Amino acid sequence: MSATTNTTSADGVAGPGGPGGRPPVTVLGLGQMGAAIAGALLAAGHPVTVWNRTPGKAAPLVEQGAVLAGSVAEAVAASPLVLSVVLDYPALYGILDPEPDALKGRALVNLTTGTPEQAGEAAEWAARHGVDYLDGAIMTTPPGVGTREVMFLYSGDRAVFDAHHAALDVLGEPLHLGTEPGLAALYDVNLLGLMWATMAGWLHGTAVVGAEGTRAVDFTEVAIRWLGTVNNFIRRYAAQVDEGVYPGDDATVDVQIAVVEHQLHAAEARGVDNRLPELLKTLMLEANAKGHGQDSFGSVVEVLRKGARR
Amino acid sequence: MSATTNTTSADGVAGPGGPGGRPPVTVLGLGQMGAAIAGALLAAGHPVTVWNRTPGKAAPLVEQGAVLAGSVAEAVAASPLVLSVVLDYPALYGILDPEPDALKGRALVNLTTGTPEQAGEAAEWAARHGVDYLDGAIMTTPPGVGTREVMFLYSGDRAVFDAHHAALDVLGEPLHLGTEPGLAALYDVNLLGLMWATMAGWLHGTAVVGAEGTRAVDFTEVAIRWLGTVNNFIRRYAAQVDEGVYPGDDATVDVQIAVVEHQLHAAEARGVDNRLPELLKTLMLEANAKGHGQDSFGSVVEVLRKGARR
Ligand SMILES: NC(=O)c1ccc[n+]([C@@H]2O[C@H](COP(=O)([O-])OP(=O)(O)OC[C@H]3O[C@@H](n4cnc5c(N)ncnc54)[C@H](OP(=O)(O)O)[C@@H]3O)[C@@H](O)[C@H]2O)c1
Ligand SMILES: NC(=O)c1ccc[n+]([C@@H]2O[C@H](COP(=O)([O-])OP(=O)(O)OC[C@H]3O[C@@H](n4cnc5c(N)ncnc54)[C@H](OP(=O)(O)O)[C@@H]3O)[C@@H](O)[C@H]2O)c1
Repeated sequence: MSATTNTTSADGVAGPGGPGGRPPVTVLGLGQMGAAIAGALLAAGHPVTVWNRTPGKAAPLVEQGAVLAGSVAEAVAASPLVLSVVLDYPALYGILDPEPDALKGRALVNLTTGTPEQAGEAAEWAARHGVDYLDGAIMTTPPGVGTREVMFLYSGDRAVFDAHHAALDVLGEPLHLGTEPGLAALYDVNLLGLMWATMAGWLHGTAVVGAEGTRAVDFTEVAIRWLGTVNNFIRRYAAQVDEGVYPGDDATVDVQIAVVEHQLHAAEARGVDNRLPELLKTLMLEANAKGHGQDSFGSVVEVLRKGARR
Repeated sequence: MSATTNTTSADGVAGPGGPGGRPPVTVLGLGQMGAAIAGALLAAGHPVTVWNRTPGKAAPLVEQGAVLAGSVAEAVAASPLVLSVVLDYPALYGILDPEPDALKGRALVNLTTGTPEQAGEAAEWAARHGVDYLDGAIMTTPPGVGTREVMFLYSGDRAVFDAHHAALDVLGEPLHLGTEPGLAALYDVNLLGLMWATMAGWLHGTAVVGAEGTRAVDFTEVAIRWLGTVNNFIRRYAAQVDEGVYPGDDATVDVQIAVVEHQLHAAEARGVDNRLPELLKTLMLEANAKGHGQDSFGSVVEVLRKGARR
């Protein structure tokens, strides 16, 4: 926190050239996430130039060797690679539109969260202004930034991804999903949806076993162990989804419909809200009604695909 | 499948004493799961005695060295440890009740799926008949039996678990959850509930990205990678659930409510059924209404706990 705790780190050593010749990077936006990203780059030895609407937030990073730019144009001029990490797209355009040519010939990797459509529009904005554009999605909270456990998703210009791989690799494992700029944002919201579903299912079980006095941390270690087994199931069912055939040779929808009744009963008896398992049972019953009773749970995808495209 | 394919395995080598002195085990029930269990024990060098209502199903196991007993009493007499793996509890009592004293002094590890209440009743049945009883839940489909990746959950008499640990260890990682006999069954249904929630969330995302031409297997590899990050979140939130305080310093319920709108929109535009994310959003809105808007997703447990115990 204080300057003294930083004297043992690489403060000040990272001059414009950077130790080990690591290329300079500019970070626009020093909220919780932007600050974590700039800090990880500094720690890895990149010369880092930062800009933030509220400049005072840069102080801890400047202590660690970052250069605080006085303007967006000055910040952008300092590095071939610019990372933007602001609140949302209106904030992004609020920063970039006043000096649209400042970024010309540079690479903009935009880590601001938004919709696939917003990513596509930003890619068009970049193309109009001679900027190489890569869209990104950050699949972690700030404390995970800079660790190998987390992943950062990218989509759009593959050449930008390849040229700046070393810097992107500092933030977390970088995955390039495809050249369609909206893919990272599309994965992002759907991975978050998977997270909410998983966390709600886990909290439901936690509440039920908790009613018997089992600690959440104890149930959770078993649940995490179990999710490793579930990974094997979804890997198998993924291939089935791509084939459009769902052999139920390991476990059928009908067998699971029978077991879900036990789950509902156990939760009901312990005063736990059953809307989630009731919905999951409904989806399984609908799969059965569509003729998938003897198929695997993978066949539930046929229930979710209404097929109507707006 | 045929005898010839088995001649290279340990057929016939496992006589009554067993190689390496591994103790004999009896398996009652040779459906898909019982057959996998008996097979894994044989492969590990245990002398195995089997019994099944339909004796013909024992043939492949007999080829591998199992002894087919002519009656339940004969089967049970052959081993100090008896594993039961039949369809359900009525089937179990149908087998055990006619000769209730045959099991006296032996250990019965019952892997038949049922409710916590049924497990408790079976433990009482066993106590009345002088049988040591351990209840178990099999957290895999038959192909996973005998591998280190899977776990078998046990609850009840800890001495049975300890005395027969070596044999139980052959089937998968054995976890003893506590002395309450119903715990394994309670964990079982709740872990399955977690699985259904996770799989439905995953299928929803798979359907959405699939509408853009992304293969399920490609999305799934990223999803599995992401579930590793989710594990870190639930581990953190588990401690919060036990404390009853849910600091939202990494990500708040309110921030997630904002993002779920993007998910709903992306799915709606691609013709994917939104009942699951709508419900998850509702749970988050209810957490907000309870004053948890600035808390973590862990606070959703407060919404799920209705508190009414029937
Ligand atoms: N935090 C996470 O766990 C996480 C995870 C994944 C993705 N993200 C994404 O990362 C981005 C930043 O999130 P954060 O957590 O860092 O948020 P934050 O702490 O609230 O910071 C917001 C940043 O945006 C800037 N900003 C807001 N409105 C602006 C405007 N009109 N003009 C210029 N700058 C503006 C803020 O500048 P001031 O300092 O001047 O206010 C600050 O730098 C968001 O898109 C978020 O969705 C965050
Ligand atoms: N398969 C899985 O993935 C899985 C996973 C976890 C737990 N389990 C549990 O394991 C147990 C067995 O499942 P399974 O997959 O092996 O089922 P299965 O293939 O249908 O086999 C059922 C077994 O129960 C016997 N049985 C049925 N009714 C009987 C009766 N009235 N009297 C005597 N025996 C009777 C059958 O004998 P016959 O051969 O004579 O019909 C057969 O041995 C179930 O409780 C199941 O929930 C299975």
